[in-house]
Amino acid sequence: MLVVAEKINATSRSIAEAIVNKDSAFIARLAVDQAEAGADFIDVNAGAGQTSKEQQLADIEWLVDVVQEATNKPLTIDSDVPGVIQAALNKYRGEKVMINSVSAEPERLESIAPLAYQKKAWLAALAMGAEGIPDNVEERVQNCHIIMNYVKKLGMEAEQIFFDPLVIPISVDTSQGMVTLKTIEKIKAEFPGARTVMGLSNISFGLPNRKLVNRSFLLMAAYAGLDAAILDPLDTRIMSIAKVADMLTGNDPYCKTYVRAHRKGEIVE
Amino acid sequence: MLVVAEKINATSRSIAEAIVNKDSAFIARLAVDQAEAGADFIDVNAGAGQTSKEQQLADIEWLVDVVQEATNKPLTIDSDVPGVIQAALNKYRGEKVMINSVSAEPERLESIAPLAYQKKAWLAALAMGAEGIPDNVEERVQNCHIIMNYVKKLGMEAEQIFFDPLVIPISVDTSQGMVTLKTIEKIKAEFPGARTVMGLSNISFGLPNRKLVNRSFLLMAAYAGLDAAILDPLDTRIMSIAKVADMLTGNDPYCKTYVRAHRKGEIVE
Repeated sequence: MLVVAEKINATSRSIAEAIVNKDSAFIARLAVDQAEAGADFIDVNAGAGQTSKEQQLADIEWLVDVVQEATNKPLTIDSDVPGVIQAALNKYRGEKVMINSVSAEPERLESIAPLAYQKKAWLAALAMGAEGIPDNVEERVQNCHIIMNYVKKLGMEAEQIFFDPLVIPISVDTSQGMVTLKTIEKIKAEFPGARTVMGLSNISFGLPNRKLVNRSFLLMAAYAGLDAAILDPLDTRIMSIAKVADMLTGNDPYCKTYVRAHRKGEIVE
Repeated sequence: MLVVAEKINATSRSIAEAIVNKDSAFIARLAVDQAEAGADFIDVNAGAGQTSKEQQLADIEWLVDVVQEATNKPLTIDSDVPGVIQAALNKYRGEKVMINSVSAEPERLESIAPLAYQKKAWLAALAMGAEGIPDNVEERVQNCHIIMNYVKKLGMEAEQIFFDPLVIPISVDTSQGMVTLKTIEKIKAEFPGARTVMGLSNISFGLPNRKLVNRSFLLMAAYAGLDAAILDPLDTRIMSIAKVADMLTGNDPYCKTYVRAHRKGEIVE
């Protein structure tokens, strides 16, 4: 399971404040801590909408600079504003980068996918269109087809795409957990080479013991074929579950990674 | 998820001793505790092989009597010795009962399945033949076909069968977790009406943090289509996971059971 580390996100108040105060030590520490905890990508989200366009660009440029100084891990540029993504990519010196995200919405797809093409970036792609998140597997996968057709015409490879099946809280509609999981299965079957990514926390919205529910959903998603999860790598329990998931799905030869993590005291029940 | 409560099993030393000492209070308490913790079936296993045939029959008769005095929950008669199963069924006054288990091995199938037919019992059926546990999905499912063909000829219904996909320790062969899970999926697809049951603990044999691994496997199995799990209902953490599994797979309308369990303090992370 690839881990996209989610903590450097301006929707969290401490991050928003660090950006305003240009507290590079705080951000750098969080980047290093997440990398050391096993992150494969460091998500960077500088916020949107609360400030002027100029400020947004200045914020993402500062954030990318601080994080790439702190760690060599690939970044995930987390924005749906083409100008912000472009500014981040211009600033970024690393070779590998993910853009998160496009959708099948034409305006978004046509403005953001070309940036991924030019940069040879990975591209997270939401299985939704202009009408929002479909409540069924077929329409979600149909949106994936729209996206894949477009990016292939641009010249991108399936291997560059991480489809996000999208998660609706189980408390809102109890059938939606299975819709997400079956969407993962169908994406994996219909798009060889493409991978899947998703955030976990939406599933448990409105419920008690949210982290237990998130961890449980990660295990089911791993079996369904999830390749990457957006999560907090400083949460030792979900990182333990990610290792168990890899082991049980046959992705940890000789259980080596699991047993080594146990010996280092990193497997937490 | 149906819960088959596993604790009254003579492979555990305290149970073996309670049987020898005719400690009915100990056994009865365990039956009541498991029923109150949410068991749907109470497994009874009086041991085999260590004593004379007469003693085995006396032991299972005593055990069935003690447990059926203590609780109204259906029993699971856990033995592969036809005489022991017959003695248990003769003693049992309840209407609903499960026999655990037959396999595709002709001698076992032909001696035990007719007992299930006569008693209108549920029958747990292992996806293995005389050659042991196949290492692949196809042969396991083939064994299920042998069993289903035989019991249908006897006059049994698919609804009476709980197929056990069988579990090999992931530490022995890391591909075997997926074989078990895919076997569940294929059984559910090929045998409408039939259900699936399995024990969890084999998966984690030889590994640290076994219960974490068992709980994780239960979640994946629930998504694959597992209907019933043989487990310790006094383990509050696995019982919590069983409720989360039902919720995430769309089997807990309005998340009612999960939220009610949380309010009673029964959801343990």
